Amino acid sequence: MHTFIKGIEYFLPEKRESNADLKIDNPDWIIDDIEKKTGVTTRRISSNNQTATDLAEEACKKLIKSGLETQDIDFIILVTQSPDYTLPTSACILQDRLGVGSCIAFDVNLGCSGFVYGLAISSSLISSGLAKQGILVCSDTYTKYIDKNDRTCRPLFSDAAAAVHISIAKDDLMGPFELGTDGSGFDKLIVPSSGSRIDSCGMVENRLYMSGADVFMFTMDMVPKAVNSLLYKSDKKIEDIDLFIFHQASKLVIDSIIRRLDLPEDKVFVNMKDIGNTVSATIPIALSDAIKDNRINTGDLIMLVGFGVGYSWGGCLIKWQ
Amino acid sequence: MHTFIKGIEYFLPEKRESNADLKIDNPDWIIDDIEKKTGVTTRRISSNNQTATDLAEEACKKLIKSGLETQDIDFIILVTQSPDYTLPTSACILQDRLGVGSCIAFDVNLGCSGFVYGLAISSSLISSGLAKQGILVCSDTYTKYIDKNDRTCRPLFSDAAAAVHISIAKDDLMGPFELGTDGSGFDKLIVPSSGSRIDSCGMVENRLYMSGADVFMFTMDMVPKAVNSLLYKSDKKIEDIDLFIFHQASKLVIDSIIRRLDLPEDKVFVNMKDIGNTVSATIPIALSDAIKDNRINTGDLIMLVGFGVGYSWGGCLIKWQ
Repeated sequence: MHTFIKGIEYFLPEKRESNADLKIDNPDWIIDDIEKKTGVTTRRISSNNQTATDLAEEACKKLIKSGLETQDIDFIILVTQSPDYTLPTSACILQDRLGVGSCIAFDVNLGCSGFVYGLAISSSLISSGLAKQGILVCSDTYTKYIDKNDRTCRPLFSDAAAAVHISIAKDDLMGPFELGTDGSGFDKLIVPSSGSRIDSCGMVENRLYMSGADVFMFTMDMVPKAVNSLLYKSDKKIEDIDLFIFHQASKLVIDSIIRRLDLPEDKVFVNMKDIGNTVSATIPIALSDAIKDNRINTGDLIMLVGFGVGYSWGGCLIKWQ
Repeated sequence: MHTFIKGIEYFLPEKRESNADLKIDNPDWIIDDIEKKTGVTTRRISSNNQTATDLAEEACKKLIKSGLETQDIDFIILVTQSPDYTLPTSACILQDRLGVGSCIAFDVNLGCSGFVYGLAISSSLISSGLAKQGILVCSDTYTKYIDKNDRTCRPLFSDAAAAVHISIAKDDLMGPFELGTDGSGFDKLIVPSSGSRIDSCGMVENRLYMSGADVFMFTMDMVPKAVNSLLYKSDKKIEDIDLFIFHQASKLVIDSIIRRLDLPEDKVFVNMKDIGNTVSATIPIALSDAIKDNRINTGDLIMLVGFGVGYSWGGCLIKWQ
């Protein structure tokens, strides 16, 4: 599609949580072992009153400060699984807070595949002529769902927002896409007592559950297929791709993908160490860090692949401009 | 856009609530006065265990039964503000339950504007080449949010799901669109204690609040503007439109729109009496009923306008095929 990423900014909440902090709450955890698997040493934790919309607002403001004119914003698409309210949609709150005039605004409920889905949706809105440019923002506060003694989730997940300026392009820079779903795994990464499953006027549990082994197996099955499908669709080989940015699920997951696909390690960008798994925000945050690290040059072919909760996955190729 | 509505089906939960039922809980309510304003005599109420995904599943199954092949479904877009879970997205659960293979699946969080937004998103996915056809389904169970003594909301809102088969077309049958947002009204129709605003492990209130007067003023300001903007964009006059289908907010709202725009009454389809205000499902349900009533013929030009929670509004023209 004739669209491109014109700017990226992200925002991390101030509060840091180290692995030593985990040990205080869980003296029996062997932190070295956990750290080897996760690759994460520090996570960011939203404060009690800090919502996904608050984080998204900060990321979007950075984008506006860096030159995006509010009158040019035709859409605000917020990818989140921790909206401020069940209704209204949080994107409307953002539109008002950012001082953007009337525009297309809605939330998309997706997790780790959400950024790539969001690229597909926003690029389609541009391709179809309904918009020329706008903001795609990924923001979540999963840590609010996580029990302090949950050894599967707590060492991984972190809170953040990333805002991306998507704009019309002269050339075909975005795509192909590979977007898929396997809802048979819907209960493997879930907040079971949420949404309509909360008893009204009952006690809220609101806790995240992840079957790590199941999600890992799904990932190892599906991500290589998605990568190969994208290569096939675009008539490219692994050698043609300048940089792979996978959802920063964990070190174990990314290492396993590298092995399974026999990818050159230096072509796979990894930055979860000080940031953690920030759900749909990991890919745009990694893109932004890769640019700062001079890992991306104009004309580079980059493959993005997100995967997880749903199960849902989304991959695409972008030609960097 | 070169897309069209190839089929519509809807599902209403079995349980009916009459206005006499309201009187039992609220002896001081003057039912005749309420009924004159709302135009609603019967609402449908989902049972305790019946979620928006359950209703959506029934509507989608009807669509499949009426001829849509599951292998042809490239996307399932679920518009809902009462998802089963905060995560995963309910569209993934639908994909699995319907026996649809891997496809694009996500929830969009929008209310009364959601069907038109959903048409825009799904038509854009088709226009951009990411899909050829799929299901747009609108489903909500707002009645679960409503206090039995809430005189503003209870006489209006009703539960339902409507599933629409959107497909690629040879001709330009869909559009133009008019999609807008005014988030300054985010707190005028809201479940204040929901999403991140629920205290975890606290009591859930989970109640809908609507400032009827504010929402009415927004509607009277914005809907005529949206209608005129669509006429301007398409270079049409009111006389050129064969049927207007507005979101079935209430009789008072639709009558006021008719007066404000000086519309011929027989060109405005109204069917809320036995169904109530089913949020994003009202427009596809009305479309379906209008077809059954022989109010729509091939080649007819139909204007759809949804508006409400957000504030958010969406209007479009469709040429019926």
